[in-house]
Order: sequence, then C-alpha cells, then structure tokens
Amino acid sequence: MEQEFSSILLETAVAELSRLPGVGRKTALRLALHILRQDESAGVSLGEAIINMRRGVKYCSVCHNISETEVCPICSSEVRDKSTVCVVESVKDVMIFENTRQFNGVYHVLGGVISPMDGIGPDQLEINSLVERVNAGDVKEVILALSATMEGETTNFYIFRKLGSTQVKITQLARGVSVGNEIEYTDEITLGRSLLNRTLFSDSFNSGVL
Amino acid sequence: MEQEFSSILLETAVAELSRLPGVGRKTALRLALHILRQDESAGVSLGEAIINMRRGVKYCSVCHNISETEVCPICSSEVRDKSTVCVVESVKDVMIFENTRQFNGVYHVLGGVISPMDGIGPDQLEINSLVERVNAGDVKEVILALSATMEGETTNFYIFRKLGSTQVKITQLARGVSVGNEIEYTDEITLGRSLLNRTLFSDSFNSGVL
Repeated sequence: MEQEFSSILLETAVAELSRLPGVGRKTALRLALHILRQDESAGVSLGEAIINMRRGVKYCSVCHNISETEVCPICSSEVRDKSTVCVVESVKDVMIFENTRQFNGVYHVLGGVISPMDGIGPDQLEINSLVERVNAGDVKEVILALSATMEGETTNFYIFRKLGSTQVKITQLARGVSVGNEIEYTDEITLGRSLLNRTLFSDSFNSGVL
Repeated sequence: MEQEFSSILLETAVAELSRLPGVGRKTALRLALHILRQDESAGVSLGEAIINMRRGVKYCSVCHNISETEVCPICSSEVRDKSTVCVVESVKDVMIFENTRQFNGVYHVLGGVISPMDGIGPDQLEINSLVERVNAGDVKEVILALSATMEGETTNFYIFRKLGSTQVKITQLARGVSVGNEIEYTDEITLGRSLLNRTLFSDSFNSGVL
C-alpha cells in the first residue's frame, strides 16, 4: 500500500515504528497519529525513554541478564545464593522466575535454545560461559529451566554432557500437572511423568507454595 | 500483573510504550526487549524519529491537516483548486483521498464527527473555521466526505444547515455498491440509494476510474 504523507517527519516515524515486531504500516500510522494527538511532552517522553533504555541497558558480564551496571543487581546481591545457578533461555524468563519469588539463587541467560531449524547452534548461545562459570568452582547446583520442548530438551542434554566431567549437581524443573489444570485435559506424557515423580503430599504444606 | 525489572530504564520504556493504543504491558515488554536485541543505532533512530515528528509536525492553519509549515503543501500548492473543499473527519482520511488520485481540490479536516455519546459536540470540531472559510468567498463547492454512519450523517446535516445561508454548492460522496462487492451481500438501503442515484453507463468510461 503506497501512501503519500504531507510530512517527511511523519513518514520517517511511521517507517521506524513499522520495524517493530507485529507492527505493520497501518498500525504504525495509527500509532504515529495517536502520538500527534497527545501532548508534545508525552511523545517526547516516549522517544527519550526508548533512547535512554537502548543507550543505558547493557548485559551483565556474569549472567548475561540485562543490567545498567557491569554486574547485575542479582549477581551482585549479598543475599542471593551464588552456588545455585538457574539456566534460562531469555531475559524475560528471568523476570518470570523472579515473579514466582521461589528462587534465591542466581541466573545464567543462554540467549535461546539449540535449534538447527533456525540455524542456532551451541556456539551462538552462552553455553561456554556457563561451563567456565561452573569450572571456576563456586557453583554447586545447575538448574536447567528451559522450555519443555524438543529444542529445550536437546539443549538440556547438551549442557548436561558439557558439564558431565564436573562435580556439579544438575537438576531440571519438575514436569507435572499444571496448577489449576484438570486431569482430563492434561497430556499423557505429562501425566506419566507426574506419576513417576510423585511427591509427598505433606511436602506441599511445607514448601510455602500452597 | 506485577513485574520486577532489573532496570529502571527498561521499566520506564515499558511504561511509556504501554500507553500506546492497543499496546498492553506484555506487548510493551516484548517491543522493549526487541529494541534491546537490535543495534543501538536502530533503537536511537526510532526514539529520535518519534521526538522529531512530535516536535516538528504542526497543523495547517487553513485546513487543519498535519503539516511541517504554517500552511500545508496541499493548501499552498499552485495547481490545486482552492474553490473545491472536501470536508473529512481526520488527517488519515486526507491520506486516503489523496491515494485515490481523483481529487484536485483542497481539504478541511474536522477532527471528528458530532457524537453526543462520546461527548463530542460541534464546538470541538473545526466547523466554525469551515464556515469562516466559506464566508471568505473563494469556495464554490463543499464536498461532505464523512463516514456513512449515524454520526457522519448528523454532522453532514449540521454543516449543511450552517452553510445554508451561503451560495456555496454542497455535495456529498455518492452512496452505492462498493466496487468489487456482490449484489447479494450489499445491504438494502445502499441498494435502494444506488438505484435512485444510478448513473449513465457511458460515464464510467469517461471518468478514468475504470
């Protein structure tokens, strides 16, 4: 769809907005016209927030989570347990685990999972840096917290092999029935694993989750 | 959904992005993380494009379309027919009519239509400025090009009454079967009006549309 704008500035903003994922040219125009209808200060704040974020946010040199400092607040916290490292796919997954308030260790952000279909091999992920971190000595447990997909399981297995020669304890997230889900609608593989890995009922009172 | 970000800069950008229409907090976070994954220059260009647009784009003092100058390129063009004014709801509608390449007159952007349900009365729209423009004398025809909705028709009628005392010719967009639509799926009111306002078949060859 060709469009003639009476303003180069609008044209430029629409072109930039339409580079965002899920934002086509029509949506970009709608957003730009919305910004024009608002106060000037609102549009300027939005633009400045994007620039400040992009310029100011770096990646933690230890765990590769986003951070405004060389080492992120989680890695530099006095109260977090540095000996337990939770391996996650993305920055977003760190936020999700932090929201559970059930984890007091530290993270290691891989930046994805091994996926030959998407051309992502182990070398594009932060796997070597994880191995170095474990070899450095202080880590006692590595929790594999990747998605329960084919790619996630492949990556889990690759990391498991890479760390096999070390003394570190390697665990993974429990597979089981999702809280709130009905048995009738839970798949058979999940049900099978939830039976094999059944837990003591009394433990659920003590864990603090229920 | 409460979320703890490890970065105030990210938090601020997500809050600003989630003020955009149709962008919730989850989408805003997805957009922000996308911007962080891109080159720094891409994020900065986006932010600057928004700021430059918001600071640079004004409204034309004649037709109220967006413009980077006091009078927009359409109103100041030598080749446009200033005696024919097409009245539209919004800036976007100007773009849509320009894309048809069927109109060589000028525009008047109302900024909406009369809608008591949304608290929009005639005084919030650029109706008085339209009347002044017509009273100034050079306008020979006013084309009412508002939506064929209850609110659009109400606004058409209001403008018609306001301009009733002048000598200006007042027309409106033809109502009829949309090009490409099947008769079977066209509503009865539209069909009725398309019968009443039928045109000479030979005219469609001469208009340049077909």
